[in-house]
Amino acid sequence: MNVSHGVENEYLRRHPVDAAEQLETIPDPELEPVVGSLDPRALGIAMEYLSPPKAIEVFEVLPREAQLEILERAAPRLAVTLLAQLDDSRREQLLEGLRSVSREDLRRLMAFRENSAGRLMDRSYLAVQAELTVGQALKRLQQSPLRGARSVFVVSTERRLEGRVDIQDLALASGEESLADHVQRVDEAVTTETDREELVELLERSRLDSVPVVDLEGHLVGVVRYRSLFHAIEDVATADLQKMVGVSPEERALSLPGFAIKRRLPWLHINLLTAFLAASVVGLFEGLIAQFTALAVLLPVVAGQSGNAGAQALAVTMRGLALREIGIRQWRLVLGKEVMVGLFNGVALAITCGIAVYLWSASFGLALVIAVAMVMSMLAAGISGSLVPIVLTRLGQDPATASSIILTTVTDVAGFFSFLGTATILAFML
Amino acid sequence: MNVSHGVENEYLRRHPVDAAEQLETIPDPELEPVVGSLDPRALGIAMEYLSPPKAIEVFEVLPREAQLEILERAAPRLAVTLLAQLDDSRREQLLEGLRSVSREDLRRLMAFRENSAGRLMDRSYLAVQAELTVGQALKRLQQSPLRGARSVFVVSTERRLEGRVDIQDLALASGEESLADHVQRVDEAVTTETDREELVELLERSRLDSVPVVDLEGHLVGVVRYRSLFHAIEDVATADLQKMVGVSPEERALSLPGFAIKRRLPWLHINLLTAFLAASVVGLFEGLIAQFTALAVLLPVVAGQSGNAGAQALAVTMRGLALREIGIRQWRLVLGKEVMVGLFNGVALAITCGIAVYLWSASFGLALVIAVAMVMSMLAAGISGSLVPIVLTRLGQDPATASSIILTTVTDVAGFFSFLGTATILAFML
Repeated sequence: MNVSHGVENEYLRRHPVDAAEQLETIPDPELEPVVGSLDPRALGIAMEYLSPPKAIEVFEVLPREAQLEILERAAPRLAVTLLAQLDDSRREQLLEGLRSVSREDLRRLMAFRENSAGRLMDRSYLAVQAELTVGQALKRLQQSPLRGARSVFVVSTERRLEGRVDIQDLALASGEESLADHVQRVDEAVTTETDREELVELLERSRLDSVPVVDLEGHLVGVVRYRSLFHAIEDVATADLQKMVGVSPEERALSLPGFAIKRRLPWLHINLLTAFLAASVVGLFEGLIAQFTALAVLLPVVAGQSGNAGAQALAVTMRGLALREIGIRQWRLVLGKEVMVGLFNGVALAITCGIAVYLWSASFGLALVIAVAMVMSMLAAGISGSLVPIVLTRLGQDPATASSIILTTVTDVAGFFSFLGTATILAFML
Repeated sequence: MNVSHGVENEYLRRHPVDAAEQLETIPDPELEPVVGSLDPRALGIAMEYLSPPKAIEVFEVLPREAQLEILERAAPRLAVTLLAQLDDSRREQLLEGLRSVSREDLRRLMAFRENSAGRLMDRSYLAVQAELTVGQALKRLQQSPLRGARSVFVVSTERRLEGRVDIQDLALASGEESLADHVQRVDEAVTTETDREELVELLERSRLDSVPVVDLEGHLVGVVRYRSLFHAIEDVATADLQKMVGVSPEERALSLPGFAIKRRLPWLHINLLTAFLAASVVGLFEGLIAQFTALAVLLPVVAGQSGNAGAQALAVTMRGLALREIGIRQWRLVLGKEVMVGLFNGVALAITCGIAVYLWSASFGLALVIAVAMVMSMLAAGISGSLVPIVLTRLGQDPATASSIILTTVTDVAGFFSFLGTATILAFML
């Protein structure tokens, strides 16, 4: 393969996403000769599709002029991400090299909280004043470099947001009409401080393609478009993955270890407490285990099966709640389904597992004990897997938070108790 | 509370989303008097925000005329969902009551695969022919009831898709200009058969707000708008929750038990195999356990902690990969972080746990054994939690599929082995 690794200007311009994927696979030491020869403008577009660590690597090996051009021209979100990774003096040096308009723009953007509407908004939008005629407004639009908008915002002389006009309405009106006749109310506006989660919810509830952003004094400062929320929607939707095992939704794969340690440790301590609870169940049967050590060997099998089956029920129910496909009032239906599934799969696994244990131990009693315990604990898994997120929601909690930790406690206790309890009753057969 | 449960026409019209939330909380037997008096048109809008089971309940208690009005006027997606739940004869009866245009529309829609572009598309869009002048095109737009679009599609006389024109460009052009001068190429179009996943990916890669949909012969038949993909984006993003524990991403909270049983059982059998593997590790130490039964009691504590810590590392890494915040080439960074976290949290938990065990057993040896095992198994958890999804990706697999099952095997084996192994070495202290 030649030094370009297949990434050349023409390719970069036509297929920025594919080029980004290609760049992603180039080892860091080989990056410099590849990206050094590329057009910074085209590179800046492809860099939006790189993972942040790779984007930084690429940025770092570029000559200063190329760096400045990327900061100046690329999407502000990329520029802010890149600048955030530099140390203060490097950042200042680069900012000083920019045109003052861009510099001030980026500084203002960096001042907003991460994940706030201020950071996510697009600062280019169309705005006109209501006193104009349709013809005058169209003339203003003609002078703007923006294309492809579907509405124009209407602002007062102090840039206070007053409404919006559909461009389609402008196109259909005659030039002498007053713009004011076509102004529609803006029902939904957010401030620069509005959280990403709230924005996602707002766009979901409303049927808007974009939401205007005003500052704390009500002046229009930007617009959040649907497509810039794509990442935010995915991000919010996948947060449950982390919350269910006691990881803060803010933690990222490359967060600092200190942040991860501090946030995860409390939940691990709670998990420790629940693990001792499960252990105390085993403790109740210590005498029995001393007599039949094979029980200790098979103990994790029942609890493990129950744990996984419970996690299945939990995942489906939690996702159903998150996507609003079920509400908590449907708890009977969900529970009924999971009881059926637990019972059926419990019987199926009891048969497989019973046969396997019989072949291993040649003890019919032990095989029977594990089979009975399997059915009982799988049932308990289905019941708790479906009820944990529903009960959490009913209590006003997030159905994801710590759900996996609560579930494991239930399935462990159920698994241990059903297995050792059945063994106690059927001890004469062991 | 009066019989309306606070849901009245005015409220329904102004706040459909809130009204839907209100409706969701009304028990099914009390629905009829509440919804019977509502304006079907406003109700149809609110019903889009109901969970499907509740939407069906509401629909079922309405008089036939109201049902027909909802099918006729509400979003086609709602109509298709409602019709899909009825038995064949009821569905036919209702369809027969509709105007023939609506009936054919709905039939055509139902013929598309679920989750295909055909089902998700909007059948109302603006289209004109290229031979027109700008003025003529504007006249056509004026006759259309659609408002708020940002572009018009250009089609041939056979309705083949030829391009699109920004409405903003139309607004700015003079009426005599030829429309053909303003036509832009459409780079991205999908067919009615295109999958939802592919659509989501396409909208993510491109910077479009909507994608035109063509049939297999290239005729324009609809448009998929960003906002109708909102649910699809969330749905695709949350599929990992299920895949990681061996549940098919197609399963829903209210899927038929038979579907759930058939799809979950194979993974539960694989999990059973891995549970036996973990049990065989315990089997190696059967003699030791017979001597010190306290080991059997504490066994689940170490494995449980390691399992939860591993699930934390797994969740963060998997989410990072899914959101493309990391690529597999960053494996060293991710692994390094998780090793640090595992080591630190392992030491912290070893101290807590060691003290607790000493207080319970008054055995310094046992406390030391569990403390050492805790550090080792927490390290193993961090390593496997971060590497499992990365290795799966490297092997060309989905990083989520069965990741939790693989991880649990590793953390169980590591937990049992480190605990019982350390106990063997330090047996003289027990």
